[in-house]
Amino acid sequence: MNEKRDIYLDNSATTRVFPEVAALMNEIFLEDYGNPSSMHHRGVTAERRLVQARKTLAGILKVKEKNLYFTSCGTESDNLAIIGGALAAQRRGRHLITTRIEHPAVLESMKYLEAQGFEVTRLGVDRDGLVSPEAVAAAVRPDTVLVSVMHTNNEIGSVQPVEEIGQAVKRANPQTLFHVDAVQGFCKDLILPKKMHIDLLAASGHKIHGPKGIGLLYVADGVRLEPLMHGGGQQGGMRSGTENVPGIAGMALAAQMLCGNLEADREKLSAMKQRLIALLAQIPDVEFNGRTDETAAPHILSVRIRGVRAEVMLHALEDKGIYVSSGSACSSNHPRPSETLAAIGTPSAEMDNSIRLSLSVMNTMEEMDVTAQAIAELIPFLRKFVRR
Amino acid sequence: MNEKRDIYLDNSATTRVFPEVAALMNEIFLEDYGNPSSMHHRGVTAERRLVQARKTLAGILKVKEKNLYFTSCGTESDNLAIIGGALAAQRRGRHLITTRIEHPAVLESMKYLEAQGFEVTRLGVDRDGLVSPEAVAAAVRPDTVLVSVMHTNNEIGSVQPVEEIGQAVKRANPQTLFHVDAVQGFCKDLILPKKMHIDLLAASGHKIHGPKGIGLLYVADGVRLEPLMHGGGQQGGMRSGTENVPGIAGMALAAQMLCGNLEADREKLSAMKQRLIALLAQIPDVEFNGRTDETAAPHILSVRIRGVRAEVMLHALEDKGIYVSSGSACSSNHPRPSETLAAIGTPSAEMDNSIRLSLSVMNTMEEMDVTAQAIAELIPFLRKFVRR
Repeated sequence: MNEKRDIYLDNSATTRVFPEVAALMNEIFLEDYGNPSSMHHRGVTAERRLVQARKTLAGILKVKEKNLYFTSCGTESDNLAIIGGALAAQRRGRHLITTRIEHPAVLESMKYLEAQGFEVTRLGVDRDGLVSPEAVAAAVRPDTVLVSVMHTNNEIGSVQPVEEIGQAVKRANPQTLFHVDAVQGFCKDLILPKKMHIDLLAASGHKIHGPKGIGLLYVADGVRLEPLMHGGGQQGGMRSGTENVPGIAGMALAAQMLCGNLEADREKLSAMKQRLIALLAQIPDVEFNGRTDETAAPHILSVRIRGVRAEVMLHALEDKGIYVSSGSACSSNHPRPSETLAAIGTPSAEMDNSIRLSLSVMNTMEEMDVTAQAIAELIPFLRKFVRR
Repeated sequence: MNEKRDIYLDNSATTRVFPEVAALMNEIFLEDYGNPSSMHHRGVTAERRLVQARKTLAGILKVKEKNLYFTSCGTESDNLAIIGGALAAQRRGRHLITTRIEHPAVLESMKYLEAQGFEVTRLGVDRDGLVSPEAVAAAVRPDTVLVSVMHTNNEIGSVQPVEEIGQAVKRANPQTLFHVDAVQGFCKDLILPKKMHIDLLAASGHKIHGPKGIGLLYVADGVRLEPLMHGGGQQGGMRSGTENVPGIAGMALAAQMLCGNLEADREKLSAMKQRLIALLAQIPDVEFNGRTDETAAPHILSVRIRGVRAEVMLHALEDKGIYVSSGSACSSNHPRPSETLAAIGTPSAEMDNSIRLSLSVMNTMEEMDVTAQAIAELIPFLRKFVRR
């Protein structure tokens, strides 16, 4: 191992931008910087960048280009889908369904709607962090306007049976919208909205080696949303504001790079994750949150270490140039108890003992070995330290 | 003139990113790519970029760092200020005031609130596109919760007496919030929110040679806003979503570069604009919308050409590599009649005859000569063509 090089295992918080993506954005910043709404050549070339990006992303999701909208982040995509979708459909009913392990962008959008008089059913999950399609179906009512279930959980990497859930929702109430927060799953797994009965799907640029400040929202034909933002009427009035052309083009290129190699990347990620699991499983008092087999996300591993607080381990690893997160670092600087860990039945005494290792294609097998060894060496030391 | 080089005179639609800004962003994409919410070193360095940017922008506006929020664009900043401000204050009243010449981000936010039961007073302007502080004061009522007046008009470059309007608002009702859309004025003019009695001020990155996809909102102490987006609680819960660190740092650097040289840049812009005015004024049937003296914005010139449709002139200039806009290209691809031109009393037969030349510090005096000459040569040709 090159001692100077950091090991970045916090790819579910954010990723390093692919150099190719940074280069493309640089080109657009300096050359194709026009406003796509401008009628002259500079506007046209900027618009062409948008069209190209839309085509790339539509191809990946196997949807029509006109069903894609660009936002500023995954959070905005989730808010627009849930709040925009619920408000536009509220004459049909005011009941919503979600799970207890969603990202705050979903949970807080639901809370907002609750304060507006909507009723929210929050489904529990099993020990593996999985929602049952039957439980979703049973919760759907005639007045259920929207169901939101994430694709891949950001803390423990559980992957929901999205297609079965979509089927169950539509069978129970064909009018109910099905929203999927795919921020962690997009470009890590094959996600096909039409096949999976998904009406609304949110993704984010900076989780896939694209830039921060860009999000994607797929909106199925015939689905109405109330816009969150009002102005110049860009994107058919669904999302006003000058389009972030370099961000959009950057996200599309990153997605193309990942999805062009999806199967090989998944194998690589899985192999690294399995190596970590094999090495860490040998350490006494180490357990894993959620499933460790191939049905879980290939890039997220949640490790519970009895007797060692996550924050302490995080900083001890940081001293060695290894960057991980405690629970979910996707939210603000002020960590709160993890709803996901509580939902899967983590004993309350062990709620603060989980670290998350999240991988990307930029990581190497060697880094897994170094990381596992570092954790193994730190545990006895930190446990003694903590027990003093 | 180098025949190969385009002349970009659509800087009020969007600007070329400063190479220094693009280089900084590239560095952050590849090196300081952490999530500011992450607790490890990579998060800390990203957070430091945010702190630095906040400090730069706070210094420019002479406000406290904690009063600055980052959004995804000027449109979002205007929406958050107006909708967020009005909803948070609605117990005090449901009356709003704005002008007839605002950007669609303001006008459409007002329309949205109107649909929610708010009452909106829209003030007219004089022939120069100016709002009178007295008219604003006269319109303020005990139930007026927010007044929104833009700093610099995006179509004709009129600069409102913002400080006098702020004073008038506060004298009439100290509880009324004063919002200023400063998207076109920021870094072109000295804008000091505290001195000018401004409670809320919106700016945008891509109008100042920063990147697209980033906006700024100043919020005075004690002003409450309802967030538009809900999630991880970033930025004190006012604007959830992972902060766009490269965009924020890029906008701050662009602002610093412009504001470090504000007086000299204003002189340069004014000199170029005055040259255009001097040359174009010699052409029969050319008139200017709004004032042409130093009280108007130094970078925006709206030119009305009797008998020549703006779109025709735009494309004729485009053929010569000169890029201008017809009316305002700030909004969508579907141009609508200009509210600003109507508000200043443009005869309806001449509503389609105005082109906008908007300059930046990247333009040169030589480009003004070339442009004025091109317009002079084109007018007789195009007029004949149109009259056939």
